[in-house]
Amino acid sequence: MNRLQASYRIRASAAAIDARARALAIEQSVEMPPAAITEQRIHDEVVARVEDIAADGPGHFRVTLGIAMETTGGEAGQLLNMLFGNCSLQEEVSLVDVDLPEAALRAFGGPSHGTGGLRALCGATARPLTCSALKPQGSSPAALAALAGTLAAAGIDFIKDDHGLADQHSAPFAARVAAVQGAIDAANRASGRQCVYVPNISGGPLRIGEQLRAAREAGVRMVMLAPMISGLGAVQEIAASGLAVMAHPALGGAARIAPATLIGKLFRLAGADAVIYPNHGGRFGYTAASCQDIADAARRPWGGLRPAMPVPAGGMSPARVEEMVGFYGREVMLLIGGALLEAADLRTAAGDFVRRVHALENTP
Amino acid sequence: MNRLQASYRIRASAAAIDARARALAIEQSVEMPPAAITEQRIHDEVVARVEDIAADGPGHFRVTLGIAMETTGGEAGQLLNMLFGNCSLQEEVSLVDVDLPEAALRAFGGPSHGTGGLRALCGATARPLTCSALKPQGSSPAALAALAGTLAAAGIDFIKDDHGLADQHSAPFAARVAAVQGAIDAANRASGRQCVYVPNISGGPLRIGEQLRAAREAGVRMVMLAPMISGLGAVQEIAASGLAVMAHPALGGAARIAPATLIGKLFRLAGADAVIYPNHGGRFGYTAASCQDIADAARRPWGGLRPAMPVPAGGMSPARVEEMVGFYGREVMLLIGGALLEAADLRTAAGDFVRRVHALENTP
Repeated sequence: MNRLQASYRIRASAAAIDARARALAIEQSVEMPPAAITEQRIHDEVVARVEDIAADGPGHFRVTLGIAMETTGGEAGQLLNMLFGNCSLQEEVSLVDVDLPEAALRAFGGPSHGTGGLRALCGATARPLTCSALKPQGSSPAALAALAGTLAAAGIDFIKDDHGLADQHSAPFAARVAAVQGAIDAANRASGRQCVYVPNISGGPLRIGEQLRAAREAGVRMVMLAPMISGLGAVQEIAASGLAVMAHPALGGAARIAPATLIGKLFRLAGADAVIYPNHGGRFGYTAASCQDIADAARRPWGGLRPAMPVPAGGMSPARVEEMVGFYGREVMLLIGGALLEAADLRTAAGDFVRRVHALENTP
Repeated sequence: MNRLQASYRIRASAAAIDARARALAIEQSVEMPPAAITEQRIHDEVVARVEDIAADGPGHFRVTLGIAMETTGGEAGQLLNMLFGNCSLQEEVSLVDVDLPEAALRAFGGPSHGTGGLRALCGATARPLTCSALKPQGSSPAALAALAGTLAAAGIDFIKDDHGLADQHSAPFAARVAAVQGAIDAANRASGRQCVYVPNISGGPLRIGEQLRAAREAGVRMVMLAPMISGLGAVQEIAASGLAVMAHPALGGAARIAPATLIGKLFRLAGADAVIYPNHGGRFGYTAASCQDIADAARRPWGGLRPAMPVPAGGMSPARVEEMVGFYGREVMLLIGGALLEAADLRTAAGDFVRRVHALENTP
């Protein structure tokens, strides 16, 4: 079967929904009146099909389209375009779910490391993982490196750039990455552990290429980027190159795409090994159910794709560790940034975070 | 003055709005508790400031933040990140407007050609411009080239790829571009005119680089891309390289960013010489007022930035030419795709479109 299934929620009357669904199928494929298409093959194999229409609450319907896989070209950005490019401009339409045939999943590739590969990188086979962030932007490479050294010495598994750290004068990418990776390498030599640095990649194609080269030269094994800022296609290419990838949800909240579908499925499909998303109870309004959906979508068996590690973040603190692991289980990376930095003593707070997580080694 | 002004519309109570605005300023800059920031410079120069709060309809407020220009690093994707990265995940917040100091506008660059440069490319100094699209995807390079030849012979100024044409098997980028540019070159030699081909660029950084090389080899002078799919940073880099850029709004409708701000201002700032957006009265729900706002934002004087050409599209037909030019004036590129293809005779319909537009040469 060479079509993917895309499910949309559409606000429309019962009288209008059939025509509306057909129009959506056209919009998300050939984008022209079908009567004007002369090639039979295009009718048979390229034009999207309405596969199902069902009521979905008052005044709303769930429409499932069969979209020809060939229109995606196997490229993640183009997949997003065919799923929700033009209809993103139609505010009565939102994208709810996506399913692809197994062969298509394999063709996209998914995570190159997955949860297992991340565990191998940091050397933690069973327990939940810890992550913190280098902040604030505006700090020098030396300041960020010192912070990284402290966090690594405290036992944090993954240290990411704040997503606001790009290529600014205060800490240009190459200088920052060399300094931070150096500090983390030194901490690892002293501790015997394997803390992993995750610098933030940003910019257009040329700048991204330069940053990836600088990162590799510095010995970086994993990078972060925001697919909705830098392109889902960039995630796919970086995953194919062998670096592990952490996806940040910046600009992703407004997309009118269900969070579990965008973050748990599409980011994973494109190759994100870890997916950050706003945790419930923090600065963002995601519900607990929504967060559970994201984590489930990231981790559940999906064709042959490796599972991606959920990284709930935002408003987390060491005091919530047990609650979070109780909620998500062990296959989670807990990200705590600001709460460590505002503690009276960073080293103590980070150590407390680490200790609480390690104590949950045998949580089911 | 080294801050840009970003205006947001926030749903909040009067009792909560002060704290909410301060939280937004933190979120869109340092993203950590300010009390934990030890460097005075960061407090003074990096943390965003609440510059104004005003009522904006029942239960809503307009909040203006002063965001430090240094946080953008002069890079268009990072600008979008600082404007709306994290708060895109907070559904009560939408981005309404952006203003930058003149020096910052110049630093970003804006369009490298602008409306004047596009007119020079196609040789039409005063009248409105015409554009059509190569459809449907799934067609072979030869079929697309034949269509391009017909449209060019009819006098169309700009011929763009359908935004669904990426790098699929049916018409891989390099083969398609060579065939289409060849057909258009032949038509131009025969007619003495200067029809411009605008292929669609897609993919991650490596693929974009390959496509740009192939495009240049084929003699392409202008490319199209969807900034919300491929990254606003890509627009900026391509503009800096000397190619003209047409921006497609795919995935841009859902962003909770005011269309005039996203399409008319930010796409222009990043370097789009022409900005496509859904025209009122077509398949998309944009109002006439919204369309006027987009066109105004694209064209009005803005620091030293060249104006961008508005390209209203979607549901247009030759019969609407006079209405559209009456609405927008002469500084507009009318895009008609499907309506030409579904006409009884394409050459006649395209010629009718062209004739109607040329007749408006002296419209004010």
